[in-house]
Amino acid sequence: MKIVTLAGGVGGAKLAHGLAQILKPEDLTIIVNTGDDFEHYGLYICPDLDTVCYTLAGIANPETGWGRADETWNAIENLSKLGGPDWFKLGDRDLGTHLERTRRLKEGFSLSQITRDFCKAWGIQHTVLPMSDRPVRTFVETQEGELAFQEYFVHRRCEPRVKGFWFDGVDKAEPVRGAREAIQSADAVVICPSNPWVSIDPILATLTPFPLSGRGVGVRVVAVSPIIGGQAVKGPAAKMYRELGIEPSALAVAKHYRDILTGFVLDKVDADLEKQVQGLGVQVFVTNTIMKSHEDRKQLASDVLSFIGTDL
Amino acid sequence: MKIVTLAGGVGGAKLAHGLAQILKPEDLTIIVNTGDDFEHYGLYICPDLDTVCYTLAGIANPETGWGRADETWNAIENLSKLGGPDWFKLGDRDLGTHLERTRRLKEGFSLSQITRDFCKAWGIQHTVLPMSDRPVRTFVETQEGELAFQEYFVHRRCEPRVKGFWFDGVDKAEPVRGAREAIQSADAVVICPSNPWVSIDPILATLTPFPLSGRGVGVRVVAVSPIIGGQAVKGPAAKMYRELGIEPSALAVAKHYRDILTGFVLDKVDADLEKQVQGLGVQVFVTNTIMKSHEDRKQLASDVLSFIGTDL
Repeated sequence: MKIVTLAGGVGGAKLAHGLAQILKPEDLTIIVNTGDDFEHYGLYICPDLDTVCYTLAGIANPETGWGRADETWNAIENLSKLGGPDWFKLGDRDLGTHLERTRRLKEGFSLSQITRDFCKAWGIQHTVLPMSDRPVRTFVETQEGELAFQEYFVHRRCEPRVKGFWFDGVDKAEPVRGAREAIQSADAVVICPSNPWVSIDPILATLTPFPLSGRGVGVRVVAVSPIIGGQAVKGPAAKMYRELGIEPSALAVAKHYRDILTGFVLDKVDADLEKQVQGLGVQVFVTNTIMKSHEDRKQLASDVLSFIGTDL
Repeated sequence: MKIVTLAGGVGGAKLAHGLAQILKPEDLTIIVNTGDDFEHYGLYICPDLDTVCYTLAGIANPETGWGRADETWNAIENLSKLGGPDWFKLGDRDLGTHLERTRRLKEGFSLSQITRDFCKAWGIQHTVLPMSDRPVRTFVETQEGELAFQEYFVHRRCEPRVKGFWFDGVDKAEPVRGAREAIQSADAVVICPSNPWVSIDPILATLTPFPLSGRGVGVRVVAVSPIIGGQAVKGPAAKMYRELGIEPSALAVAKHYRDILTGFVLDKVDADLEKQVQGLGVQVFVTNTIMKSHEDRKQLASDVLSFIGTDL
């Protein structure tokens, strides 16, 4: 079975890792959000891409889900002492990634080439693609004005009330080379349990007009809800739904994707929503979707693949 | 007594530290070579300036003389694994300095402002000045062609045979603000035991036409020889003299500076050169000039100040 998965940060990285434990390298392509990439200290930083790669390589920090295991913080400690902005946590090992990526970008290599080389160096065999080699930048419209994504997410800790989102550069950003082919030859696209507004929407907006629409006309699209029991497993997704006037729930997530969705994976906690999601014309699979252990990741990936294996 | 001292890297930093242990903050100005500054990974790196500041702040690596104490190397370890150039040793704590300096330069602050702020953060009370706020770049003419200084010094480990030196940008580089005033009001300029060709000459070339010429017409200038018993205490100074066809010796160093020198400090090992140096019209002081301990630094500084205190 050939799968393309769309992933944001921590939740996306976990399910992608689960899928990578089951699928052969040539059968899994992971397309990662780069809408929250930004420049900081002159370094080109790709938080979601790094989280996915570190997770696949087994070098992610197991406690935070992002950043590196066995990390040290000496550079930022010194930075901070010198009065530099220290709101974005730059670990020392992680810095090596940003420095080398930035150096190669300046030499003219594309982000996808660099990602391929980094994956090779880290022993990652499955294909990891940034959604585009051109910059797309997520901006958050808030009641305090427009904020660049990391400014909203990290610096302001998602405090400002959200009014909407937009993706700067998306009109000019071609999808990364290989994404079209991977999707067209895939048995299904799996949308990871990442934030629909700021992790998955930027990817979908960049991939448009790809043949993502399901319902028999294109490739099958299965999403795993990042909202369980009305709460986001991690991050501000539920808060965003509330601030936008939508009750946060797995149903709201299914509605979010309804135009492209053929299948939806609900957590057991939300089994009571099954009928309502089916009412959207979407098939439903109910299972445990919380990924605490490596085994959970593999189990959820296995469940998703079984679901796709049925005549979805 | 008011002193201006001209310093390169490790040897310069040690004597500057010795002087700082004796002189009041308002009585010591340290003008540091920036000819070996360079850009690496997009970072603006000032090796001599950092060595001097780290040494004065008591945070230098006591074994190497350069870099930070208690340093970690996680960023470069990752860089190296990713295939990035790793010939210049970037420590993690040190990286914080380069990142914040680069950020501030891009914001429009001058190197001297940044240095002043960093000194304050590190608790350095004496005045440390980069020789200029404009870039001056030392190039080494070798038998293999022209090499940028760090390329010659670190990457090629001083192996190529030297034919000469030149300082790119020196014509347009004004001396840093405050240097002129400090020298004019100083009782003496002390040239540290740094490499004459690549640490002190760039400073002198940048300060020209300052009233450095001694012999009664300007400020007194006292140099401490970096060559002892025909050997450089550290670095390629002796090798450079040999490759340029000059026998390396303290006498050769005194001759190097003869146009501006009023006094010269010889190591006891070179006491036999006293008469020959005096023959250049230069007063001589003989003492121990090897600085192994903090006490050695202070003792040499004290000896140099006593020498200046005589009617030099």
